[in-house]
Amino acid sequence: MEKLQFASDYMEGAHPRILERLMETNLEKTAGYGGDPYTERARQKIREATEAPEAEVYFLAGGTQTNAVVITSLLRPWQGVVAADSGHISVHEAGAIEAGGHKVFTVPNREGKLRAGEVRELLQRYKSDENRDHMVEPGMVYISQPTESGTLYSLEELKELSGVCRRYGVFLYVDGARLAYALACPENDVSLPDLARLTDLFYIGGTKCGALFGEAVVIPKPGLIPRFFTLIKQRGALLAKGRIAGIQFETLFTGGLYQQIGERAICAADRIRRALKEKGYEFAFDSPTNQIFVALTPEQRARLAEKAELSFWEIRPDGRTVMRIATSWATEEEDVDRLIGLL
Amino acid sequence: MEKLQFASDYMEGAHPRILERLMETNLEKTAGYGGDPYTERARQKIREATEAPEAEVYFLAGGTQTNAVVITSLLRPWQGVVAADSGHISVHEAGAIEAGGHKVFTVPNREGKLRAGEVRELLQRYKSDENRDHMVEPGMVYISQPTESGTLYSLEELKELSGVCRRYGVFLYVDGARLAYALACPENDVSLPDLARLTDLFYIGGTKCGALFGEAVVIPKPGLIPRFFTLIKQRGALLAKGRIAGIQFETLFTGGLYQQIGERAICAADRIRRALKEKGYEFAFDSPTNQIFVALTPEQRARLAEKAELSFWEIRPDGRTVMRIATSWATEEEDVDRLIGLL
Amino acid sequence: MEKLQFASDYMEGAHPRILERLMETNLEKTAGYGGDPYTERARQKIREATEAPEAEVYFLAGGTQTNAVVITSLLRPWQGVVAADSGHISVHEAGAIEAGGHKVFTVPNREGKLRAGEVRELLQRYKSDENRDHMVEPGMVYISQPTESGTLYSLEELKELSGVCRRYGVFLYVDGARLAYALACPENDVSLPDLARLTDLFYIGGTKCGALFGEAVVIPKPGLIPRFFTLIKQRGALLAKGRIAGIQFETLFTGGLYQQIGERAICAADRIRRALKEKGYEFAFDSPTNQIFVALTPEQRARLAEKAELSFWEIRPDGRTVMRIATSWATEEEDVDRLIGLL
Amino acid sequence: MEKLQFASDYMEGAHPRILERLMETNLEKTAGYGGDPYTERARQKIREATEAPEAEVYFLAGGTQTNAVVITSLLRPWQGVVAADSGHISVHEAGAIEAGGHKVFTVPNREGKLRAGEVRELLQRYKSDENRDHMVEPGMVYISQPTESGTLYSLEELKELSGVCRRYGVFLYVDGARLAYALACPENDVSLPDLARLTDLFYIGGTKCGALFGEAVVIPKPGLIPRFFTLIKQRGALLAKGRIAGIQFETLFTGGLYQQIGERAICAADRIRRALKEKGYEFAFDSPTNQIFVALTPEQRARLAEKAELSFWEIRPDGRTVMRIATSWATEEEDVDRLIGLL
Repeated sequence: MEKLQFASDYMEGAHPRILERLMETNLEKTAGYGGDPYTERARQKIREATEAPEAEVYFLAGGTQTNAVVITSLLRPWQGVVAADSGHISVHEAGAIEAGGHKVFTVPNREGKLRAGEVRELLQRYKSDENRDHMVEPGMVYISQPTESGTLYSLEELKELSGVCRRYGVFLYVDGARLAYALACPENDVSLPDLARLTDLFYIGGTKCGALFGEAVVIPKPGLIPRFFTLIKQRGALLAKGRIAGIQFETLFTGGLYQQIGERAICAADRIRRALKEKGYEFAFDSPTNQIFVALTPEQRARLAEKAELSFWEIRPDGRTVMRIATSWATEEEDVDRLIGLL
Repeated sequence: MEKLQFASDYMEGAHPRILERLMETNLEKTAGYGGDPYTERARQKIREATEAPEAEVYFLAGGTQTNAVVITSLLRPWQGVVAADSGHISVHEAGAIEAGGHKVFTVPNREGKLRAGEVRELLQRYKSDENRDHMVEPGMVYISQPTESGTLYSLEELKELSGVCRRYGVFLYVDGARLAYALACPENDVSLPDLARLTDLFYIGGTKCGALFGEAVVIPKPGLIPRFFTLIKQRGALLAKGRIAGIQFETLFTGGLYQQIGERAICAADRIRRALKEKGYEFAFDSPTNQIFVALTPEQRARLAEKAELSFWEIRPDGRTVMRIATSWATEEEDVDRLIGLL
Repeated sequence: MEKLQFASDYMEGAHPRILERLMETNLEKTAGYGGDPYTERARQKIREATEAPEAEVYFLAGGTQTNAVVITSLLRPWQGVVAADSGHISVHEAGAIEAGGHKVFTVPNREGKLRAGEVRELLQRYKSDENRDHMVEPGMVYISQPTESGTLYSLEELKELSGVCRRYGVFLYVDGARLAYALACPENDVSLPDLARLTDLFYIGGTKCGALFGEAVVIPKPGLIPRFFTLIKQRGALLAKGRIAGIQFETLFTGGLYQQIGERAICAADRIRRALKEKGYEFAFDSPTNQIFVALTPEQRARLAEKAELSFWEIRPDGRTVMRIATSWATEEEDVDRLIGLL
Repeated sequence: MEKLQFASDYMEGAHPRILERLMETNLEKTAGYGGDPYTERARQKIREATEAPEAEVYFLAGGTQTNAVVITSLLRPWQGVVAADSGHISVHEAGAIEAGGHKVFTVPNREGKLRAGEVRELLQRYKSDENRDHMVEPGMVYISQPTESGTLYSLEELKELSGVCRRYGVFLYVDGARLAYALACPENDVSLPDLARLTDLFYIGGTKCGALFGEAVVIPKPGLIPRFFTLIKQRGALLAKGRIAGIQFETLFTGGLYQQIGERAICAADRIRRALKEKGYEFAFDSPTNQIFVALTPEQRARLAEKAELSFWEIRPDGRTVMRIATSWATEEEDVDRLIGLL
């Protein structure tokens, strides 16, 4: 019998409705580089969903690419970006931001999150430092929703961060690689229009939320990044067949599909979470979304590893290994049952 | 009636067989980042087709990305790359190579091609210059097959270039964005195994040859680029769902599909070429592949523009505009008939 | 007997008056990083000499550094710089501009110079290219006065270039590594105020004009480069003991010293030029400044090489080697006599 | 009466013996770019002083420049450098390392120092991380001797760090901007030969130790950085009149001058330290070298600021401001008396 697969939320192809649309439109001829009607309709649907009628929307291929292109295009050469020390750009992007010339200022995370007060302190410290002309200026704050630890910023927390950023004239950018799983989570109170209102730019994740690939960068106030199209090209991120991304996002934002994709994953994750709790497993973070982090003893890890593929997160000083269980739109009820059986 | 579409070879989705395979495999769960069996099989098929059993094969998303990642990963910081002044990296990649820190040395093109003798002169000039420690070292030669002008290097020309590069200890890299159209061209005598034997690395184009997206980088002698996987990640080019590229290339290299895709385009291009010749149009380059470059008077351009979408190439000093007609695997006989009717 | 030294204009220490001033001021204590009164006075003297009362003035250490810092600080990431193919940044700075992320567009030189018409063509070609969003934007024009070939732009030529740059919204930057030798040249009709009026920024060379080291960047309209101080620091070009440069430039711009330094070199060069002409030597360029380029047969080169140190320039296709003879403020009459004797 | 000047150790010109030597040699003609006999002799004297007869020695202009050039030249693109969070490269170089493409991993400092155990943990954590192919590899450890807080690594501590670095195959680099003040400190037990034996490369500071400018990079095992000369040029750090640095370092390493410069500063600092201790001032760090860090109440700071120029370090959470008092080779006894009087 095959191993159970709970290692990540990007183990399948795409939601079937996406493939269907690619099939239906396959032989039409359209302009390249995003100049096609599908891409335009996808932009329009995202403007509606975010209630940002003026927004610029760009489609890129993956998360690290999107972060690198957005951050290095928006920052000026003397600026850096503030992130949690657990942030994807801080740890798991092979130094893409620094390779693009910018410092990542790290702040210790609190369950994967930045606290507004700590960000304010960092910004104020720079502002009051008499040697600041010899220092990198923090020009942007990066957060993820949900975070890399599966946790969520509340609307209140997001407002506070947004307030701090605006007071200090610093951009706020949200990495929404798994945004569907935040939007579908009952604990969540941050909507797409909230993101458009409270941040300077963010991206709506496709790759990890049911697309073959693709992330939609939303810039609510147009003109934020001059010559962004050319910069996307320069960084190797411009899709010749831009419509492949456009069709996918048009589909995701038609008939509530993006929301449904999130819900199915959350539903499966909730069942697993309850089972873990009942059986006394220790959670590494208190995450309500589609990623569950359990701290396993070497014995527990070895036993589970025989039957289920989970994903390595980190080794803790206490010797336990934190492993990630991820669900997705494609997680089968029956696989959840079997996993629960194993625990 | 709709306009005829001959602007490029990336106006459709993908060859239907590719979409079918994506459908068939869609719900299987596999590891990410190219660690899946489809990608492994695609690698294996490419190793066979290139007769390079040890080759490393990597799948990236697009042409500019591939050039930028390969060139900046292989060159050391004191090195630059030699290219034709018409080369894609010289003109149409928004400075991606320079943005990665490296000079592009340009040599005047001869129908889109570099001549071995002129490359040798450039390499020798550097080697004999007493100030060379103050200069960029040419570390790589970049060519395209077919070239940006639709022309082809003959096997003899490729051997000469390869010989020069090896004599001077300089890498030879081939951009194969449209390689299918070279391989299927009756005039062509350069095979995939020739490329593997005579160059240090090259890529087999997918995006412009029937895939949704994707380019296969082939490194015949493994170990050429240390830590290439991490560098691909750093440059934002690592696909989370790597298998989407793997499945496409596995399909392209099964049952001769890559060859057939090329043939259909060449066949259509040949008919158009004959018609143009008969009607006395002037060719800007003598190209035997799927791209045809005609120099049009303003009147000719205006007249054609009403009924057919071609692609702008350049304005010549004589006032004529060079326009590109491109065919692909998806070009319909009937559209070719209509275009010929228009001429 | 020792060899005659005519290889370059940076073979000695500094003009004695500079060393005297360094001695006199040596033990005073002042603030670092250019915040001292000497540097401020040097700035003021340069503002007066250039008739640019608002100008920002920065002191850097050397020519390549200055070019790299200025160009990479002024250009935006999608822009490149236009230069003659013989320009210092094109050939002899080891790729510093590209290492900073920017393309150098090269235009064939005419006796070391760019022609306004050819620059206009390049700018217009970009502007009319329908694919320009996939291309590097020319954002700046770089020239040297005197040029690397020792030639001079006339005021008329400079005005034309300046007009073209302003019409196309492109910055004009002048590398004045050897500016003293232009200003002191009887053929020259471009003054410091002309440079300030007709360009966006330029530098007044110290290293090759009698200083221990140092170049003065002049930005006539302040605010051109935001956060330039921090960028100078970031690029490793901020002098801790900024006053060492300040004192030197204050001295150079007191009592006409900079002009005198130039005159002495021109005087010596003129005598050598006359002698070469009389003896039938072939000049590679028709240069009126302190650099003389002669095309020598292998025999001539070998014979001269025994007794005099000249500087290698290039090997010409006709087998002759172009060698450079450079004079400076420190060239002795008697050495000139001996060199003339050798010819 | 003028203010007392204790803000830094780079407020004067150069040690008089250096200026004398520049005077004496001023009119000699020598080759540029470090190809002169003075530079060669300086290299030789440094090889002797460090007991590293094979060492490569390069002279650069300043500290940030040296760090940026060395670190970006030695690291490969997938690597970063480990430093204390108080390290000069972490805070006060305006992001020069990141601008060069590399991450600075920060570790909390212990009185300005890295602990070997904490470095080992960081290196081990990377090595054991199953996702390390998506992460920056720590390729180098950076420390300063003395540290930015004026403290010293003991020989024992340096050996431990060196051992850890060698075990993990990571380079160890020492920033010796103020090395003279370490070498002259009675508490110090790390000699120049120890540095050459235990590290991969380091620099001997000139700018802050009595030179006009200049830092000597020592690479005990030659060949460590391929094409380093060209990289120095590319980064704008190659001095045309290289001998100006060479003469200075030859002088510093003749007759024990470098040691004497350190001793005079330490002597003055020791007197000030004793006075501060007696009067109950609080030290921010327990530093035995030429930099003293005192934590002042707002009243203390205001009172001192009227009569003496100190240097701002940081504002502490308790409201006190840490100010730096620095002595140098040029500090006068009488100024020390007056400062003590003020306390």
